[in-house]
Amino acid sequence: MGKQRELDFLFNPGSIAVVGASDTPGKLSAIVMESLGGSGFTGGVYPVNPKYETVRGLKCYPSIKDIGAPIDLAVVAVPAAAVSGVFKEAEGKLRGAVVVSGGFGETDDRGKALEDELRDVIKKTGIRVVGPNCMGIYDAVSGVDTFFIPVERIKRPGRGSIAVLSQSGSFALTAMDELAAEGVGVSRVLSYGNMVDVSETDCLDFLARDDATETVVLYIESIKDGRRFVESAKNCARRKTVMALKVGRGEVGRAAARSHTGAMAGRDELYSAAFKKAGVVELSGYEEFMDGCKAVGMQSAAKGRRVAVITDAGGIGVNVADACVSAGLEVSALPDGKKERLKAVLPSYFTVGNPLDLTGSATDEWFAEAVGVALDGDDYDLAIVAPLWGPPGLTDRLPELLAERIAMAGKPAIICSPGGKYSQERKGLFTERGLPVFASPESAVRAAAILARKGRV
Amino acid sequence: MGKQRELDFLFNPGSIAVVGASDTPGKLSAIVMESLGGSGFTGGVYPVNPKYETVRGLKCYPSIKDIGAPIDLAVVAVPAAAVSGVFKEAEGKLRGAVVVSGGFGETDDRGKALEDELRDVIKKTGIRVVGPNCMGIYDAVSGVDTFFIPVERIKRPGRGSIAVLSQSGSFALTAMDELAAEGVGVSRVLSYGNMVDVSETDCLDFLARDDATETVVLYIESIKDGRRFVESAKNCARRKTVMALKVGRGEVGRAAARSHTGAMAGRDELYSAAFKKAGVVELSGYEEFMDGCKAVGMQSAAKGRRVAVITDAGGIGVNVADACVSAGLEVSALPDGKKERLKAVLPSYFTVGNPLDLTGSATDEWFAEAVGVALDGDDYDLAIVAPLWGPPGLTDRLPELLAERIAMAGKPAIICSPGGKYSQERKGLFTERGLPVFASPESAVRAAAILARKGRV
Repeated sequence: MGKQRELDFLFNPGSIAVVGASDTPGKLSAIVMESLGGSGFTGGVYPVNPKYETVRGLKCYPSIKDIGAPIDLAVVAVPAAAVSGVFKEAEGKLRGAVVVSGGFGETDDRGKALEDELRDVIKKTGIRVVGPNCMGIYDAVSGVDTFFIPVERIKRPGRGSIAVLSQSGSFALTAMDELAAEGVGVSRVLSYGNMVDVSETDCLDFLARDDATETVVLYIESIKDGRRFVESAKNCARRKTVMALKVGRGEVGRAAARSHTGAMAGRDELYSAAFKKAGVVELSGYEEFMDGCKAVGMQSAAKGRRVAVITDAGGIGVNVADACVSAGLEVSALPDGKKERLKAVLPSYFTVGNPLDLTGSATDEWFAEAVGVALDGDDYDLAIVAPLWGPPGLTDRLPELLAERIAMAGKPAIICSPGGKYSQERKGLFTERGLPVFASPESAVRAAAILARKGRV
Repeated sequence: MGKQRELDFLFNPGSIAVVGASDTPGKLSAIVMESLGGSGFTGGVYPVNPKYETVRGLKCYPSIKDIGAPIDLAVVAVPAAAVSGVFKEAEGKLRGAVVVSGGFGETDDRGKALEDELRDVIKKTGIRVVGPNCMGIYDAVSGVDTFFIPVERIKRPGRGSIAVLSQSGSFALTAMDELAAEGVGVSRVLSYGNMVDVSETDCLDFLARDDATETVVLYIESIKDGRRFVESAKNCARRKTVMALKVGRGEVGRAAARSHTGAMAGRDELYSAAFKKAGVVELSGYEEFMDGCKAVGMQSAAKGRRVAVITDAGGIGVNVADACVSAGLEVSALPDGKKERLKAVLPSYFTVGNPLDLTGSATDEWFAEAVGVALDGDDYDLAIVAPLWGPPGLTDRLPELLAERIAMAGKPAIICSPGGKYSQERKGLFTERGLPVFASPESAVRAAAILARKGRV
């Protein structure tokens, strides 16, 4: 068994021990126990805590070594000073663990000493550890969920093909919550925190061979072994799309990142160069991260960067065109043949171009026809469709008609639908048909640009 | 009466004639009649159409000249070829008009000829005309509403202090709908379309003296008289905050703008220089337009650009800091005195800095105390507060406690609250207390940067 495959047991364990388990509502371990109960995880769950006989109706064990079965994954939620002891006791009985506890290198000298001790114990016992100071694993395939925030507060996305690797737990949480709200699914999410053992690089090796994952998205504050990262990212990017956001820019950002996970954030240019070398799509910030995930989670890559813009709102069309120009996308002129085809459908006085403005007289059928004609043949690589819902000729049938024509064309499309209540209520009509919706011209173009870059790396 | 004041009758007319009035549901004129009925407009409304005896139960007149009273404002919704005739007939009886009809310079040679004719008639009759090819006026003070899209589809914002001047009707609609959804009020909104007579410059002159307006925001595709614009904008910016978005960038954007309102969009640098000279805050795109309106609609200007960032989500804090650095805002170090004050409140192992990460242990009280300490004295000009709702110590009391401390400090603050359902449902708890909420670090920082620039121009 190669080293890459070793992490299988973290994402798809046969058995999970929850160390520090408790019935006290609100305690991290209680939330983890509850999440595991409702997440579809089908393996054995073993509460561990010398203080209790049972937790959530399950027999509770004083220590991992008392469980009469080997354990693949332990979720460790005990005070920092007690963590190393847990692993010493579990040696030979435990393959891997997620340490959600904080109080290590991200705090003070005492925390740093505890982190050093933990590193030593990991080396001696051979137990693979995610964290400490992390949210751990959410796996939509196996049902593992160590994210200790109740689902009432933070929703979990359904199953999809995006894997998220995040040094920041709160970033992973926000991403999960937002993707769930947008109807975008994930394969696996890992928050790896202080990275005392398992790193983003280890996970890239695992995900490179993971059939459930098509796209890997990383949130990075720092990388420990740059050379190994480039090697693994390159290998992964050969089979999957890999995108990365590196934060902690400038002096201020680096200082913030340092106090956050105790990590040294290196110079921005070095990271950009490494991403480029590895074939990784670099993301510029939170918005591009989320817009990019929405785009790749719902649409295929674009073969190039020629965009057809179809709208009923001239001003929004101009805004989309502006944003395309800034993002390096081409809003190239509509070929004469297509002009003729559209003129046969639209009123004679119409100015037919790209962007195409269907005006307040727009109908569902005009929109569908225009998108169909634009994406036909080899003039454009993708479409940005921006319906403003004002025109009376637009009905709730529009999303269905558009989705049909887009599917027939076999090219990606992005919906740009700014506005208030009426627009927002119709968003689901697009997303349930696999069309991602963006609330501003800039966000739609960020998404389109990611699809175009995805097609090129 | 100076020329500036002449436009009063457009925004605050004593009487309105709707030319082309009809009871046919869905017709532009029917929607305008309905809007005027429900918008709080208290003046006389006179339907005009030779085909009908009554419209919506009101006596209908064959022509404006048949109404037994002088008319301040006519809303003209007849085919382009009939528009000039309406004004010839109304000479001496009518002060101003909004021509919502399209089919003029934005279409073909015939349309251009009709626009030239209209321009001549305006000159001869002295009637002041907004449009053609526009949505006209929405006035939250007087209740005038010529925007011919039903309120079910596009919501109207309540009364506030922002005036929006837009060459694009769809842009004005989207802005209104979005501001209404965000709880941001407006004074007056004008969509002026092809600008055959009344221009953005005329409106700037009017708004400079308008007590209901504190901020003027412009959406510009082109300006006809640059010198006069700079003069008027400068005069207006002396008394109000003036912000402007110039669209139609590069060759593609310019072409799109040209086919949209038949206007020549000039070189970008000329516009930037003109804005700078006039003391106008230039906006970079749709997102900055909306984020800026939300910010200035709910918060005061910042005296400088020193930002305190307070969060319970380290990763989001790093993202906010990164975005601040990119936007030219300072996330300067927390002074030692304030560190001591915060250490007295927070656990001893906390790293206290800026951004301040209250971690998953955060409580409502920590947040309020941290914001209070940060904004106290003269170390920071504004705060970006980014609560992620995961921590169990955060309750629905948080927005109230934050609003109290922010009000006590007398400085502006921006809420950054990314995430899904739970966060989105709590947005109203902030906005009803006058705190604008942004869904991404970048949008929160765009808003903060506008408040900082507003304080400096």
